[in-house]
Amino acid sequence: MDKKSPHRIVQKYGGTSVGSPDRIRAVAERVKRYHSEGKELAVVVSAMAGETNRLLALSQQITPQPHRRELDAVLATGEQVSAALLTMALHHIGVPAVSLLGHQIRIATDSSFGRARIRSIDVSRVESAFSSGSVVVVAGFQGVDEEQNITTLGRGGSDTSAVALAAALKADVCEILTDVNGVYTTDPRVCPSATKLDRICHEEMLELASLGAKVLQLRSVEFASRYRVNLHVRSSFDDSEGTWVVPEEENMEEVLVSGVSCERDEAKVTVQGIPDSPGLAASVFVPLAEAGIVVDMIVQNVSEAGRTDLTFTVPAKDLAEVEPIIKTVVDKVGAKNFISTPHVGKVSVVGLGMRSHAGVASRMFDVLAGEGINIQMISTSEIKISVVIEVDLVDRAVNVLHDAFIGDDREAKAASPA
Amino acid sequence: MDKKSPHRIVQKYGGTSVGSPDRIRAVAERVKRYHSEGKELAVVVSAMAGETNRLLALSQQITPQPHRRELDAVLATGEQVSAALLTMALHHIGVPAVSLLGHQIRIATDSSFGRARIRSIDVSRVESAFSSGSVVVVAGFQGVDEEQNITTLGRGGSDTSAVALAAALKADVCEILTDVNGVYTTDPRVCPSATKLDRICHEEMLELASLGAKVLQLRSVEFASRYRVNLHVRSSFDDSEGTWVVPEEENMEEVLVSGVSCERDEAKVTVQGIPDSPGLAASVFVPLAEAGIVVDMIVQNVSEAGRTDLTFTVPAKDLAEVEPIIKTVVDKVGAKNFISTPHVGKVSVVGLGMRSHAGVASRMFDVLAGEGINIQMISTSEIKISVVIEVDLVDRAVNVLHDAFIGDDREAKAASPA
Repeated sequence: MDKKSPHRIVQKYGGTSVGSPDRIRAVAERVKRYHSEGKELAVVVSAMAGETNRLLALSQQITPQPHRRELDAVLATGEQVSAALLTMALHHIGVPAVSLLGHQIRIATDSSFGRARIRSIDVSRVESAFSSGSVVVVAGFQGVDEEQNITTLGRGGSDTSAVALAAALKADVCEILTDVNGVYTTDPRVCPSATKLDRICHEEMLELASLGAKVLQLRSVEFASRYRVNLHVRSSFDDSEGTWVVPEEENMEEVLVSGVSCERDEAKVTVQGIPDSPGLAASVFVPLAEAGIVVDMIVQNVSEAGRTDLTFTVPAKDLAEVEPIIKTVVDKVGAKNFISTPHVGKVSVVGLGMRSHAGVASRMFDVLAGEGINIQMISTSEIKISVVIEVDLVDRAVNVLHDAFIGDDREAKAASPA
Repeated sequence: MDKKSPHRIVQKYGGTSVGSPDRIRAVAERVKRYHSEGKELAVVVSAMAGETNRLLALSQQITPQPHRRELDAVLATGEQVSAALLTMALHHIGVPAVSLLGHQIRIATDSSFGRARIRSIDVSRVESAFSSGSVVVVAGFQGVDEEQNITTLGRGGSDTSAVALAAALKADVCEILTDVNGVYTTDPRVCPSATKLDRICHEEMLELASLGAKVLQLRSVEFASRYRVNLHVRSSFDDSEGTWVVPEEENMEEVLVSGVSCERDEAKVTVQGIPDSPGLAASVFVPLAEAGIVVDMIVQNVSEAGRTDLTFTVPAKDLAEVEPIIKTVVDKVGAKNFISTPHVGKVSVVGLGMRSHAGVASRMFDVLAGEGINIQMISTSEIKISVVIEVDLVDRAVNVLHDAFIGDDREAKAASPA
């Protein structure tokens, strides 16, 4: 986003981009081009596509519940191999390069095996490699805790590795090279008029979870937001500009709605007739949290006659685990009963402009009503409005909302003379 | 070898023994038995059978000559995976265990990637695991140099890892668990009357290279000899006693001949008519050493008329590389010419007893002469006599020598009353 061309770049290549020896050689050629332009380049790689699953399956052949510390030691080898292979490929075409693992640049994390969080990175070895004109290839997804145990950052963790490294190196940009050419206003498979976003701010990206999750680990965006790292999501197969995900700036054009996202894998639970008293919400959600269930939307209506209804959504796959917990809660707090819906859909519109423009919510409800789509739940944040609807109506809702808020506008823009 | 049962044990399991999830579970059961007997146990593992070759092939798909530092980073993952898998399997059956990698216990090596030598091991983490009743599983074959670069010790390096660890831990014994049940007096496929050795000293083992190489990396024996580590080579499939390889002791029975070894993959080169002057040998062997060629036997006859013949053997696979070097040498020193034989056989008899008993050499030559086997070269050390013969005659030579020096004797022993 600087006017001058970025000098110090962190690039991250996903598993598909390094999925075979041929593709690794292609990545090396791309890196060579950057290097020959005089850029300081740190490349973060994922495991070759399929490798993490292979290692996981191998571990599960030993025991269905592998010890987490040991599982991390197994899984981390995927990135170790791809980092070293890419470095070999670079040497082969005359590019000085060195692979670095989590323990070699002390990507220090906590000890939460399988979902560790990065605390710090010691970039001195990277800086000295840069000084000597070398490309650095870093194994993504991995770190070490205080006792030098190998940790991993969870699925998609290489994105977080890349952003953390970019922050530590004060890189001009962190490029996320992937098999799509950017972030779209909505899922193109659902809505044919979906268009690529040129630029979006971190907060919008976070709220567009379901769009972003396909190309970018959400935690990496949080990290980028906190450390004000410029992300550039782009294709690893060509040089076209992708989508810039950047800190919000004063002069940023406040698009009313930047994207429409949807989810289909949620279930809905309503607890009816709960005696309304302080601690009501805690009595429901503490047991769920203790069971590791991630609750998404929560809606509580005003109470009538000292009783209220509480509705929430959870991942559909967790419903079987949720139901007995809620049954216990119902008995314990003396609620009337509970009803669960195994599959509901959620559609959200997201945009910075909502903060200053009224009427987005009412227009959204109006558009859905015009299509005869019934809204079951509503939840809003500063820059997002989400509704829960029947799962079969998700595609239609996305299309009409995209046309209403984005599609027409973009078509109009495209039609207007430059 | 102590009268009391060993308390602190290092065990090494080869690639075949950890070649599948089932076999890893079987190893875990064996380890559990030792652990439940109260032993302090450090287990060193190789990569799963076939894995090192797979990783090597993958690297060579990137480039035929992979960068050595990066190749080591790739290859080391094989042992990292098997160590963590075995540790998972131990946890699964209730045995506390922790996997440790080269960088986690600082198996410090030099920086000779692909053939690094161990300098030291920091056993503090192993000792503290022992104190807490834990089994330690160490990834073999790998170490780190001073800059934390991953190094590997060369093929079969896990044996060396195990012996070095046993030395550092002052273990009572280093058990090499493998798919054969010990070291034999000669190759049983060549000579049906081959018998398992109960006990052999390090020096004999070193001289019996061709017998030992199948079950034990030679460098690990050197290491064991230097640090007086008791080795026990035994089967990983049952509990039978294998072969003890131990330091020579005062009261050791000096067997005249403990084994008959043979090799078939050598080539022979004779340089004829070299002007005999100081530096003659260097002029031939320095260029070979610079090319990384390992020369085995060297024989130089007394000179006649100021000229001499020099004969040596090299690995047969290296002959194509040796010939042009020798051609250059012949031209340079003004030798007459050179003759090479692409395949010769070598047969050796080895035994501590030779040091004090005369007549082994003459009996050996006599036995071979009796079979009409012509001797092309002779080389002797303190405890070994080797002869080069026609490659097709190796099997016959091994059989007659084994019968003459070992077979009859053992039969006699077996026949005598206890």
